[in-house]
Amino acid sequence: MKKIVIIGGVAAGLKAAAKARRCDPKASIIVLERGELISYGACGMPYYVGGDVKDIDDLMKTPVGAMRNSTFFKNVKDITVLTKTEATAIDRQAKTVKVQKRVSGEEEVIPYDKLVIATGASAIKPPLAGVELSNIYQLWHPDDAKAVRQGLEGNQFKSAVIIGAGLIGMEMAEALTKWKIPVTVVEMKNQVFPAFLDTEIGGIVGKYVQDKGITLLLDEKVVRFTGDTSVAAVETDKRSIPADLVILAIGARPNVELAKAAGLVIGSTGAIVVDEEMRTSDPDIYAGGDCVENVNVMSGKKVFAPMGSTANKHGRIIGENLCGGHLKFKGVLTTAVAQIHSLSVGKTGLTERDAKQLGYDYITTMVAGHDKPHYMPGAKLITVKLIVDANTSKVLGMQAVGEGDVSKRIDVVATVLTLGGSIEDLFDIDLSYAPPYNSPIDNVVVAANTLMNKLAGKFKGISSLEAKEKMTSGDTVFLDVRSPEECKQIRLADYENITYIPLGQLRSRLVELNKNDEIIAFCKISLRGYEAEGILEGVGFENVKVLEGGIVSWPFVCDKKNDC
Amino acid sequence: MKKIVIIGGVAAGLKAAAKARRCDPKASIIVLERGELISYGACGMPYYVGGDVKDIDDLMKTPVGAMRNSTFFKNVKDITVLTKTEATAIDRQAKTVKVQKRVSGEEEVIPYDKLVIATGASAIKPPLAGVELSNIYQLWHPDDAKAVRQGLEGNQFKSAVIIGAGLIGMEMAEALTKWKIPVTVVEMKNQVFPAFLDTEIGGIVGKYVQDKGITLLLDEKVVRFTGDTSVAAVETDKRSIPADLVILAIGARPNVELAKAAGLVIGSTGAIVVDEEMRTSDPDIYAGGDCVENVNVMSGKKVFAPMGSTANKHGRIIGENLCGGHLKFKGVLTTAVAQIHSLSVGKTGLTERDAKQLGYDYITTMVAGHDKPHYMPGAKLITVKLIVDANTSKVLGMQAVGEGDVSKRIDVVATVLTLGGSIEDLFDIDLSYAPPYNSPIDNVVVAANTLMNKLAGKFKGISSLEAKEKMTSGDTVFLDVRSPEECKQIRLADYENITYIPLGQLRSRLVELNKNDEIIAFCKISLRGYEAEGILEGVGFENVKVLEGGIVSWPFVCDKKNDC
Repeated sequence: MKKIVIIGGVAAGLKAAAKARRCDPKASIIVLERGELISYGACGMPYYVGGDVKDIDDLMKTPVGAMRNSTFFKNVKDITVLTKTEATAIDRQAKTVKVQKRVSGEEEVIPYDKLVIATGASAIKPPLAGVELSNIYQLWHPDDAKAVRQGLEGNQFKSAVIIGAGLIGMEMAEALTKWKIPVTVVEMKNQVFPAFLDTEIGGIVGKYVQDKGITLLLDEKVVRFTGDTSVAAVETDKRSIPADLVILAIGARPNVELAKAAGLVIGSTGAIVVDEEMRTSDPDIYAGGDCVENVNVMSGKKVFAPMGSTANKHGRIIGENLCGGHLKFKGVLTTAVAQIHSLSVGKTGLTERDAKQLGYDYITTMVAGHDKPHYMPGAKLITVKLIVDANTSKVLGMQAVGEGDVSKRIDVVATVLTLGGSIEDLFDIDLSYAPPYNSPIDNVVVAANTLMNKLAGKFKGISSLEAKEKMTSGDTVFLDVRSPEECKQIRLADYENITYIPLGQLRSRLVELNKNDEIIAFCKISLRGYEAEGILEGVGFENVKVLEGGIVSWPFVCDKKNDC
Repeated sequence: MKKIVIIGGVAAGLKAAAKARRCDPKASIIVLERGELISYGACGMPYYVGGDVKDIDDLMKTPVGAMRNSTFFKNVKDITVLTKTEATAIDRQAKTVKVQKRVSGEEEVIPYDKLVIATGASAIKPPLAGVELSNIYQLWHPDDAKAVRQGLEGNQFKSAVIIGAGLIGMEMAEALTKWKIPVTVVEMKNQVFPAFLDTEIGGIVGKYVQDKGITLLLDEKVVRFTGDTSVAAVETDKRSIPADLVILAIGARPNVELAKAAGLVIGSTGAIVVDEEMRTSDPDIYAGGDCVENVNVMSGKKVFAPMGSTANKHGRIIGENLCGGHLKFKGVLTTAVAQIHSLSVGKTGLTERDAKQLGYDYITTMVAGHDKPHYMPGAKLITVKLIVDANTSKVLGMQAVGEGDVSKRIDVVATVLTLGGSIEDLFDIDLSYAPPYNSPIDNVVVAANTLMNKLAGKFKGISSLEAKEKMTSGDTVFLDVRSPEECKQIRLADYENITYIPLGQLRSRLVELNKNDEIIAFCKISLRGYEAEGILEGVGFENVKVLEGGIVSWPFVCDKKNDC
């Protein structure tokens, strides 16, 4: 009878256990979990704090409401889960794990034939003065989520500061605004989601969250926390922010102490090194989930990219391979997606920043449009940024943001990336079309078409970042071809050299423009801007560009103008 | 100056015109449209009839509300659109098109260098007695939609019959139920969506629409319409159905008369033959949209598959190639998707029926599950059926149905099909994961995993159709492992040999089952059914199968039982 021991009882560990049980009905399978809870949906915690999820236990239940606890795993899967039981050492020679019961302190030695390390990751706690004050939380364990929600329900908190504008930070910012308390996000870098969005997409998100009442402090560093026993204020390098609730969300690091002490190889990312079959440097020890490093299939580089979906894949692969299988994990695209109020934002594959760093000769575009026909109720805009290899036209990555359906487009492009597809392939896909779901030409196909036009020299776009730079000289003419009504609602701010000619009048008002000027044409989504470019080039203008993504994708200040 | 003439001003024709204008600012571009309206979103008509779209003009407007009429095309794109102008003959020798003004009857001859035929398709009108009675409509033109909506708004109709349970028929069935009138759908074949769903998926949809109050008459043929001047009843081979509104939705045929008369090659599908560059048998004449045939990339066969999304692609390709480009249209996957009330249903690639006809050695699975974590508000179930080549594990097709997000999964699999991917590739994709959008293991990945297990002999499933057949002998034990509470809500009907043992008690109640029996284990979605199979096989049962898709995917009658 094979003895399988698994350290860690959340995602990867229990998935590996369940899969191993399917492959080997006779094996002894023991899961060691230092905490009390197992198999919880950690990614659901912000939604519990925000109130969308009523009960914390829901995160630990099966779809039909059974608690996934030790009894469940014993009865259903014949897996022994020992909770509050910490693995303290691995003896690879003797093939044993030393464990300590956290309540009684008792120690025990458990033998294994195959061992799985699924120790996860921990939230990083910055070494700042005052970080141990109470009401400073890390949303990493259901106990944290319970404590925060209890405080919110008891009206205990008057204002919150979140440190870090990454996934958990922004999800928590949304969650806390649902409780109607002022929320400030402090981020060291100069944008939200600095790890996975390009600057201008981050800018769009930043504008949105500030519109929703979240205070966003970028380029700002926390230096200490003050307060008596509870936190009372967050001190940054620029100001002091009163706060009686603080969420630390500055990232995570893999839990590798046990693996390191056992002499297993740790990678340059700080996480455990595994091969494609999820084996560590010891062939009898597998590792998976948030404690291992992954290959980024787009860059070929090792990355630390903890994600619940990846952990589940690791678990499946490990479970099969524990029983003699040879499943392989190919790597990650660092796909990510998040919801903040009604805004969805996501990415897959390389950002432009990544592509530049890796030395690609790349080309990008940004297009805005409705996620289904504009006449359908519930049609919303999304902005898509596509990054493509300029030599091979292979897709390198995509980002998308908007109130429309972002995750569908991310998933389509993630599929293209996995299969090594090009923008021509994107055009070829016979995507589903019906008005409740899609326009006849999907947003990602519009982006692919735009890039084909760009590569063929038939379309000259300019990114919002480049266009903003053009504003500094003052020489460039920004040509707004929207209607006066639209212009009165919203317009680009901080620039005087804007000419307003509605598209329908452009052919008859060409005298108002100068063929020698550099002209940047745009409208709400720059579809009319594109028409304007065509009209002007058709009559001999040679220096016309289209502002990609239009006003809806402009990451800088907009205002109103009464005399358009 | 190149003279481009385009016959047809809806999707493909105007897209080709616009694209040609971009490529060639100097060309003369004339579009001939026999109707009054141009560039309308025909697929939006059911939503106008149902009331979701307020004004029929919305289907003809740009996203910012400009009417896409002749003036718009002239001012913005310098394209001449002649409406109420019918092309009556093509002289390929002289390279001219003869046109007739529909109002004045005046004739004119227009010369071309390049001609585009985008004459679309027409709804099929069955040659039945009474088919010319008033209030019998074909939802093919905005005028039909306007007439039907006007009648509904005036409470003119007391009950409606729809002939044909295809896309337009079912979309119209939903639209009419929104007006609270009784709706009956009569379909000649034995299922809804007979052209693109397998029987059991069609059965799921059929059950749903009947639950929503739509009367569905399958295997039933209309023989005549009766009434004085207006329709009063629909006579079928089985009954007479009173109806003062009838919608004919039995399909479409391509408008090829003009092309045929000009001697262009028509294919076996009845549609115009074009090459990959959308050229007809005359190199100076292109054709696209609903009047041409396409290659089904999965079967390699020619098909008539009119679709707005395809027409738009044709238009783009034709427009480029008119100016010397060489873009190619690779073909279609016959992807389709539809919404009926809260239910979404779709398919891409081959159905099981197709795969069988084409002689594939294929394998299928059907899995049900939530479209995001079950603890999230708004999480809904979907059922996915995946069809895969048993020898290469290449994906051949997918169908999905449910109240959850179907179109995203269809689009991911359409992408896999376009790039020739396998179920292993489906597993590899780093799909977006966040609780508002997705579970950590997406539904299509669960289906891919299940098929990997099946191919490896690790999972024995049985389809609902096969399971239903097993009921006839009476020997097979159906093992329902749900809780008594669930069983009281709904259970499989019309069969006595069902054993009820909740999953958590199965290991301790094994004596109630016989190792020699054929056992079909199931639950709501058959996740617990799968666990039950594992438990029973682990203790030596050798003839256990899992009912794929569980009760939620059972296309036959269900009822309640008080003593589970």
